[in-house]
Amino acid sequence: MSYQAPLRDMRFVLHELFDVQGHCEHLGKGLDRETIDGVLEEAARFAAQVVAPLNRNSDEQGCRLQDGKVTTPDGFGEAYRLYVEQGWASMTGPLDFGGQGFPQMVSASFHEMLMGASLSFRAYSGLTEGTVLALDRHGSPELKRAYLAQLVSGAWSGTMCLTEPQAGTDLALLRTRAQPQADGSYRLEGSKIFITGGDQDLSDNIVHLVLARLPDAPPGVKGISLFLVPKRLLAADGRPGEGNALGCGALEHKMGLKGASTCVMNFDGATGWLVGEPNQGLACMFTMMNDARFQVGLQGLGIAEAAFQGGLAYARERLQSRGLAGPVAPDKPADPIIVHPDVRRMLLTQKTLSEGCRMLGAYTARQLDLEHGASDPAERKAAARRAALLIPIVKAFFTDVGQEVASLGVQLYGGHGFIREWGMEQLMRDSRITQLYEGTNGIQALDLIRRKVLGDGAAELNGMIEELAAQVEQAAQDPVLAAMAARVRAQLEQWRALGDSVVAACARNPQEIGAVSVDFLAYSAYVLLAALWLQAATKARAALVGGSDEAAFYQAKLQSADFYLRRVLPRAGAHREALLAGADCLMAMAEADFAF
Amino acid sequence: MSYQAPLRDMRFVLHELFDVQGHCEHLGKGLDRETIDGVLEEAARFAAQVVAPLNRNSDEQGCRLQDGKVTTPDGFGEAYRLYVEQGWASMTGPLDFGGQGFPQMVSASFHEMLMGASLSFRAYSGLTEGTVLALDRHGSPELKRAYLAQLVSGAWSGTMCLTEPQAGTDLALLRTRAQPQADGSYRLEGSKIFITGGDQDLSDNIVHLVLARLPDAPPGVKGISLFLVPKRLLAADGRPGEGNALGCGALEHKMGLKGASTCVMNFDGATGWLVGEPNQGLACMFTMMNDARFQVGLQGLGIAEAAFQGGLAYARERLQSRGLAGPVAPDKPADPIIVHPDVRRMLLTQKTLSEGCRMLGAYTARQLDLEHGASDPAERKAAARRAALLIPIVKAFFTDVGQEVASLGVQLYGGHGFIREWGMEQLMRDSRITQLYEGTNGIQALDLIRRKVLGDGAAELNGMIEELAAQVEQAAQDPVLAAMAARVRAQLEQWRALGDSVVAACARNPQEIGAVSVDFLAYSAYVLLAALWLQAATKARAALVGGSDEAAFYQAKLQSADFYLRRVLPRAGAHREALLAGADCLMAMAEADFAF
Repeated sequence: MSYQAPLRDMRFVLHELFDVQGHCEHLGKGLDRETIDGVLEEAARFAAQVVAPLNRNSDEQGCRLQDGKVTTPDGFGEAYRLYVEQGWASMTGPLDFGGQGFPQMVSASFHEMLMGASLSFRAYSGLTEGTVLALDRHGSPELKRAYLAQLVSGAWSGTMCLTEPQAGTDLALLRTRAQPQADGSYRLEGSKIFITGGDQDLSDNIVHLVLARLPDAPPGVKGISLFLVPKRLLAADGRPGEGNALGCGALEHKMGLKGASTCVMNFDGATGWLVGEPNQGLACMFTMMNDARFQVGLQGLGIAEAAFQGGLAYARERLQSRGLAGPVAPDKPADPIIVHPDVRRMLLTQKTLSEGCRMLGAYTARQLDLEHGASDPAERKAAARRAALLIPIVKAFFTDVGQEVASLGVQLYGGHGFIREWGMEQLMRDSRITQLYEGTNGIQALDLIRRKVLGDGAAELNGMIEELAAQVEQAAQDPVLAAMAARVRAQLEQWRALGDSVVAACARNPQEIGAVSVDFLAYSAYVLLAALWLQAATKARAALVGGSDEAAFYQAKLQSADFYLRRVLPRAGAHREALLAGADCLMAMAEADFAF
Repeated sequence: MSYQAPLRDMRFVLHELFDVQGHCEHLGKGLDRETIDGVLEEAARFAAQVVAPLNRNSDEQGCRLQDGKVTTPDGFGEAYRLYVEQGWASMTGPLDFGGQGFPQMVSASFHEMLMGASLSFRAYSGLTEGTVLALDRHGSPELKRAYLAQLVSGAWSGTMCLTEPQAGTDLALLRTRAQPQADGSYRLEGSKIFITGGDQDLSDNIVHLVLARLPDAPPGVKGISLFLVPKRLLAADGRPGEGNALGCGALEHKMGLKGASTCVMNFDGATGWLVGEPNQGLACMFTMMNDARFQVGLQGLGIAEAAFQGGLAYARERLQSRGLAGPVAPDKPADPIIVHPDVRRMLLTQKTLSEGCRMLGAYTARQLDLEHGASDPAERKAAARRAALLIPIVKAFFTDVGQEVASLGVQLYGGHGFIREWGMEQLMRDSRITQLYEGTNGIQALDLIRRKVLGDGAAELNGMIEELAAQVEQAAQDPVLAAMAARVRAQLEQWRALGDSVVAACARNPQEIGAVSVDFLAYSAYVLLAALWLQAATKARAALVGGSDEAAFYQAKLQSADFYLRRVLPRAGAHREALLAGADCLMAMAEADFAF
């Protein structure tokens, strides 16, 4: 399969739905429509021509660890060189350190393309952006001066070293130690697992952000500090010099994402420097968490788009059986399978989930941009609250969608879907990790309920629902959209009531938090997408009424919205009913009685 | 992970729910409860001790093709030898040819164990049973005499050679040719793909059942005949002699099931013999299709059970975070994750889907047994109709469950779920094929609607619903079960109405057949399981009221039924709403407009 960036849909979302040019002006960025489109076209070429062709082989070849050094798959080195040289690495980096300062609303499209072209290749650069964020916000001036420009350019890369064998979700259990040294540095001792890009042969240096405990640290999460630990210590001229006392002890053998090195990292008295205040490591790390989780959401979207493209291409070519109402291509030995309603069900599910997530991704990126870039502090604060509410939904739902849409891609190919050369099963394997890392999707759902909904008694949630409801009214005036609008309005009202009842239930019984969490997140996501599909349909109607010369494109948007509301949105009802069942049916069974 | 057969639950289903001893008596088989339990205990040992330990390595090692010969993974040869020697291969075979004639209701439990222990190992023997069935019913006396006893014992194995590159779902397109020879044999020319066990080093001979066209055959499916084509031609003494003109041209590179050889088989003038009448090949093949599809359903069940066991073991051991209502194991650094409601949601979903499918599997096996073994022709006919209705549901739903439950297994392990050594991701990869082969699950759903529901105007479906509804009434008398009974009764009434409305819709518009099919199958399966869970709860209540000394087991059954009805059954509503949306939202979009 070959990957092509969905440029027309991206332009629809960015310009028509969310006015990205106005957004950029508001942020004080001089990016006009033409520039943005030009960048995305170049980006599409890079993804399709440089990155995508490497993906299949990277899965077969994987990474190798020899003499303590990791070798990445063929072609990754050259592609990474171009990624840096052509400035793709520095797209979002801060201007002060050589970055181009693109808003996330634009860069998200590029990153989606990278993910769709090769999740493994993207794995080596994705965390560098988080490292930049953390260092920019919490690093000392000296650390910034020494590291930031090279991280922004992509010449050096970054990792996040959190997980230890006994400490995954529960970072309170982590044991890595940092001992202060006379020169102000620290000696780190400990072992980290699941470190993406922990070692590789792409960048000149690797900057590890490591969570560890100071000798006098209080127990639990309040005793965790953040350290910068480079693979190679910097020489007097600022260039990477002698090796630090750390290394990749092993590569994990994984289900997928085999082109990305997933390392056990051993810190054997490695030299590091404190980032931020002592014992504030988790808070420092959390400032990059929104970004990291948003990026993982985009991975799900990228995979979904790639699987939709693969499924659609096959459904158009594969000849098998005749249409249920008679032959559609009588000149051929059989009809292309896209004539079959059930094949269309799968394709439209792929399409409307992918395009729906693209809309929600851009909506969320706008909040992230405003949170960091709006000039008005109140606007920044409001955007931060909105982003905080949306991030767990984006991370969990997009990655669930990625897995489902990839699985539909496999299904569309029949038995061939199970065969590696077609590439569909790789999408399933590669994307399965996205539901697990950066906080499992169950943890995202707990975060949504506990911090983001219960945290303010559902105030932010209800505020968002009100905004979405206000947008329904325009559609309600249009006879063509009135039925859809009524459906979405009713759904938004139900969402609001459900949120309130969840808040009440959790106040009565803390077990309800975990009993409702996953279903409430899924419910919320399906309704959010419904509201956005209605907005898309509203724009499409306006274009059609205005006599657009792209009538087919806008007609397809209307048809997609209709399909989504009729055939996908019903899932929300099942999630609602399940979560209203309460915690008792989960907690009643004694642990010993789960199996006999 | 280690696999242990769920013997207690199997005994519950076989004896308490379905009175397997009475069933055997009715079939004229002298199998009492003690014998059956003894066999299942031996079977459990075989699965756990001989087969399961091979599974992890078989995935890493896979099969090799060298000089035209396939080598299976280490240990498969010895395990297969024991499988034959200890009589496991002949469990279901006809008595006339050395088989033990076990009813499917018993053998299904053994086969589920095999699948749970290693899907790859089971792949080599699963199709032999189908070959035996087809040959026993359609083969000439000479062919039976020459081949059946060796196939029944497992000394020789069987394959099904249907698929060709251009002919998967649509067998009308197949091109393999059979040329009659003067001696009554045929020369076969053509290429088949996706042939499970097409070559291997386990059995002394391989008997291929091949679909091919005679020279004068009419086009399409009415011109397909069935041939027996052995790997090695039989010498005068009846033993395998010289090699036939056929061979494995390549092994497929797959997502999973890597321990099973999936072969491209080339027939280069191979000698074969007609099975059944000319041009009746598809009908002959279809007599073994029910059995083959039932077996694939059991694969889903076996995988689901294995994933539940893996998930449960980890959830009991893994310490991470504290319970939402405070520490549960304050003496440990954190609580075992089974205290968390969302972890319990995943485990109980795994458990109730697995145990639910086990009940439905036994219910279906009973029909298969009666279809072939009841003395009363009317009973045979009634059972055949019921089995025909159930088989597509079992095949598609069990394999969807297998995939979902395996994915939950991965999720329960967090990041470790993605790592191969834990074995959970292998279950996902291995089971993904089960949704594709023996007719994709979409094809199963079409079969259900078109042949089994529309075929008789939903008469058989409504008959089954009536029977299930009658069983609700006993539960309704018990105050403890009354609410559950009311829920199931309402659901059965809704099912009946839905079936009738589907029949009407499909009569108006043939596209509705494909528009409703997958959702109607899923809806039906969830409601079937609900009815069976209520029956299980009824038996559990009776045992508890009767003062059983296994109170915890029966209490868990009640809790499981409650969980299933509250938290899993709501999915049925979403499927209903989706399928009632009609075909228009699937068919409206022009093929060119799926992407721009």
